Parts: sequence; structure tokens; C-alpha cells
Amino acid sequence: MKKTIEQKNLFCLPWAQTILGTHLSGKANFMALDWLTRVNFNPAMIGICVNKGNASYEAIMDTGEYSINLPSADMVSVTDYTGLVSGKRVDKSDLFEVFYGQLKAAPMIVKCPLSIECKVTQEVNLPTNSFFIAEIVNIYIEDKFLTDGNPDFKKMNPFLLTMPDNHFWTLGECVGKAWDAGKEIRKSKQ
Amino acid sequence: MKKTIEQKNLFCLPWAQTILGTHLSGKANFMALDWLTRVNFNPAMIGICVNKGNASYEAIMDTGEYSINLPSADMVSVTDYTGLVSGKRVDKSDLFEVFYGQLKAAPMIVKCPLSIECKVTQEVNLPTNSFFIAEIVNIYIEDKFLTDGNPDFKKMNPFLLTMPDNHFWTLGECVGKAWDAGKEIRKSKQ
Repeated sequence: MKKTIEQKNLFCLPWAQTILGTHLSGKANFMALDWLTRVNFNPAMIGICVNKGNASYEAIMDTGEYSINLPSADMVSVTDYTGLVSGKRVDKSDLFEVFYGQLKAAPMIVKCPLSIECKVTQEVNLPTNSFFIAEIVNIYIEDKFLTDGNPDFKKMNPFLLTMPDNHFWTLGECVGKAWDAGKEIRKSKQ
Repeated sequence: MKKTIEQKNLFCLPWAQTILGTHLSGKANFMALDWLTRVNFNPAMIGICVNKGNASYEAIMDTGEYSINLPSADMVSVTDYTGLVSGKRVDKSDLFEVFYGQLKAAPMIVKCPLSIECKVTQEVNLPTNSFFIAEIVNIYIEDKFLTDGNPDFKKMNPFLLTMPDNHFWTLGECVGKAWDAGKEIRKSKQ
């Protein structure tokens, strides 16, 4: 018999922990971000969930641009720090060395293995949060994190967040290939 | 120097692999689903990205309900199978034993450690996909997957997908606690 969980608000599945990069009053600002997903295949689009009380909300409403940065597991403490203090009270602009791509207000973190440059196309206004849908302008990665031309997630060593237990996790072992592992079942049913 | 990735469409970060449950012409239907996120804190809301060519798209447009089921790593093959064959051509209704909560068209998979029952509040129509925003009606879990009242992700043993390498991964080691790991940095800056 299954039981129900009361803490629905604080629940999330294991999702990659990222750092959101924005421009707040013309300076780089950063915030720990875990609630995000791809939302459209072509053109490539991604959406992020931001609490309307956060400085990052104001920043994105102002500029219509943001970056998503994937930190490695040796950046757990500094990533968590960006979620502990608000850009409304603390200047986080000098926390990371940054670079820019095509956009002016999407600062990307040099130390992160992978960064996604995003231009907002739509705000979905929800009760306590906004969901900002954006086109992916570019995805940046260092050569050393590629294997056969693809991003190699084991090399990048990202980490994941689960809630409400609030644990950070590394990636474990490879347990199969997508669009492949189910082929035997498909064959058996033909 | 960072380089850019050309395959933007097929890219995704490590996100929990799930199985979407819907009702298609009155019968249970299932599809592998990886592109989803929480979108609002209170009330608890979640959004999923579905290609408009999929049977699941028609099902959700018809009923306004769906379930999200978290399979364990011993379900890799059957999960992948649900993404290999379309509900338009293959009847997948007998693939899993299901149960129902408050909704009539959100079949939940008994064998999955955790299931989320969802009622759609908004469709965001994008070029190739729709993003279905829903209120979380209930989250169901078996007692044995709880530790101190919280879902225990190590016990549930979920798996994650990365693209475009298309690998499935287990959860690795715990490398810290969120809203905690950054406290030393915050203290040092005060």
C-alpha cells in the first residue's frame, strides 16, 4: 500500500544542480538553480523556475537574458553559497571569473565545465514563481570535456539535488543506453 | 578556450528518467519522459515537455491529467521500451499493473517506487512541443522507501538520462547538503 507525502512544495526528483547567471543593475549575479528543463526540441529551448522574490527574477525581467552553468562536484560549497545569500543584499559579482558569448547580460562561469547562453522568449507567470522560457543561443564547453564530440558527463563530474532531503549527489554508474535498452522487449513483442 | 556544441536540440543535463502515465482512448498509456521540472513552489506545480506528434500529447489534451512515475534502475529496459514504440500503433496498457488516486485518467505504476498525480492547469504551446503545467495532486510512495519520513532516493535507486550521449546513470555518492554546504563561505564573508 502506497502512502502520500505531505511536503509536496519542497519535493523534487534528482535534477542537475546549476548556477544561474544574470545581470543585476549591470553587474553579474549568480543563484543556485535546480528547477529547469528542456521545453522544446526545435528550436532548442529551455525553461527555468525562479521565485518572484529573488533578485534573479528582477534581473531577468529587466534584461531578458540568462545563463545556466553546470558546476562540477568540487564546486558544491560555492554553488550552495550562491543560494544562501540574496543578490538584493550581497554583491556576488566577483565570485567567479566570467566570459560572455553573443548576449550582453548572460555572464558565464569560466570554471564551470559547461554553460548555456539563453535569450528569454516568454514568461509564464505562476502564483509564487515565474517560469522563464528561453531559446538556447549557444552551449559552451571545453575540449577536454568532450568524448567523440559529445559532452562527457563523467568527465564534467556534475552533481544533482534531491528534495526535501536536500542531498547533493554525483553521477553513479552507467546502466544502459537510451533508445536502445528497450529493443529486446520491442523485438519480443513483434 | 571554450567551444560551442552544434547539437543543441538533442542536449540535456542529467535529469531523472521517468515514465509518463496517461489515458489514451480510455486505456492506460505510458511514455518515457525526461524533460520535466518543478515550476511553482506553492501550490506545488510541475511541468512536462511533450512532443506534439506523440500519442501522449493527444491524451493530455483530451483528459487534462497525467502521472509521473519514477522507475528504479532495474526497470531500465521496460522504461526505454515505452519510449521506443508509440501509443498510436502499440497498446501499452497491459505493460504495468497500475493504481489510481483522486484522478480518473492518471494511471500510476505499482512497481515504481514513487508516483506523482498531476492535474493540468495550463498548456504552453511551443513550436514542436507543448509544456503542460500541472498542479501536483498527490505524491505516492511506499513506506519502505522512506527514511525519517522523507523519500530516500538511494533506496528508490532511480536513474538519470543525459543527451546527446544518451546514457542512463544511477545516483552516485552524497557530496553535501543543500542550504548547508555553503555556510562556511557565507561566514567567511561576513
